[in-house]
Amino acid sequence: MSLARVQHISVSLDGFATGEGQSLDAPFGHAGERLHEWMFDTRWGRGMLRQDGGSEGVDDAFLRLFTPGVGAEIMGAGKFGHPGWHEDPDWKGAWGPNPPFRTPVFVLTHHPRPSIEMEGGTTFHFIDASPADALARAREAAGGLDVRIGGGPSMIRDFLTAGLIDHMHIVVVPILLGRGVRLWDGLEGLEKDYVIEAVSTPSGVTHLTFSRTGR
Amino acid sequence: MSLARVQHISVSLDGFATGEGQSLDAPFGHAGERLHEWMFDTRWGRGMLRQDGGSEGVDDAFLRLFTPGVGAEIMGAGKFGHPGWHEDPDWKGAWGPNPPFRTPVFVLTHHPRPSIEMEGGTTFHFIDASPADALARAREAAGGLDVRIGGGPSMIRDFLTAGLIDHMHIVVVPILLGRGVRLWDGLEGLEKDYVIEAVSTPSGVTHLTFSRTGR
Repeated sequence: MSLARVQHISVSLDGFATGEGQSLDAPFGHAGERLHEWMFDTRWGRGMLRQDGGSEGVDDAFLRLFTPGVGAEIMGAGKFGHPGWHEDPDWKGAWGPNPPFRTPVFVLTHHPRPSIEMEGGTTFHFIDASPADALARAREAAGGLDVRIGGGPSMIRDFLTAGLIDHMHIVVVPILLGRGVRLWDGLEGLEKDYVIEAVSTPSGVTHLTFSRTGR
Repeated sequence: MSLARVQHISVSLDGFATGEGQSLDAPFGHAGERLHEWMFDTRWGRGMLRQDGGSEGVDDAFLRLFTPGVGAEIMGAGKFGHPGWHEDPDWKGAWGPNPPFRTPVFVLTHHPRPSIEMEGGTTFHFIDASPADALARAREAAGGLDVRIGGGPSMIRDFLTAGLIDHMHIVVVPILLGRGVRLWDGLEGLEKDYVIEAVSTPSGVTHLTFSRTGR
């Protein structure tokens, strides 16, 4: 069965998944990289930076689930680029010529453009679609594998509200951002549909996993 | 040294320490007792209900810190009673004739009234004072012991903003309340002043402890 999965989305204690003032130079706004430092201390995170070393505990184990079994991603326009990227015909995302996705990636945007084939197996498709329609298209492209619901926080909320998420992994980082885009707004009672586990790790973060009940 | 301590304040994943619609019959509004169920599963919690049994793990250990070393409490008007309690001359708090505090308790209110001596060592004092002035008065009454900053969330925020909290224990409960009174609003950068530990327990909650740096 092909599941829709949210993977390691980091939020601050006060629930912000990105800071205020996002721009080309500051994709997470005033949060900078503070939401993601825990990743860079893992072996997986170091590998992304082409560095050796890093922890191989629970933080790393969760990150290693990024690729296996995932056949497509859906991401929001705000993840694909800084505000206004759709006015730049040469913008191909923030990940360089060889993005880490290595699957079809469906970018939700009100400004569709032709698909872009990147090195390493990633192809960006640009679609103006509802969460349900986007998921149907991504499932078809995923060939029976799971679909990653890639973020940012606003599109994750849309998919949660539509009841489309089967599994969600959120990482709470012990900082207070005070402003930005909240993940949790408008989700009263969400816990009724999920089994939730919390596991804190020595890095100071807490991993929350939401598994849909009765699945 | 007499510290100002916040003890086991429960918040939902989305940061609400109390729900919407607080009243005499629903002191936590639409949240009901869902923020506090984890307490009633501990030996300490069962003891409060005059029942036997209950867990004796980390959840219980934290709760047992409620009394030792604490010589006074400061609480907000919203904790002492439902909205409008100050218009009821007979209101003596929601804890019955023998409240669990067993120390002087300073209630912050714009409607001071004469002190009330209860059974078991609790005396309620009603003061209209700034956080710093209230803490000075409570410290004097505590005779060298610590002062509990008892909540609710609005007054804890006021004390945090004034830089008056030495230690804080927050319990994150895996539910989404969606509405109510937020604990974390307006506290950007709070982590810079504290060493923060996170410990999740088998009950599903996560204990966060904030210890002031350089203390």
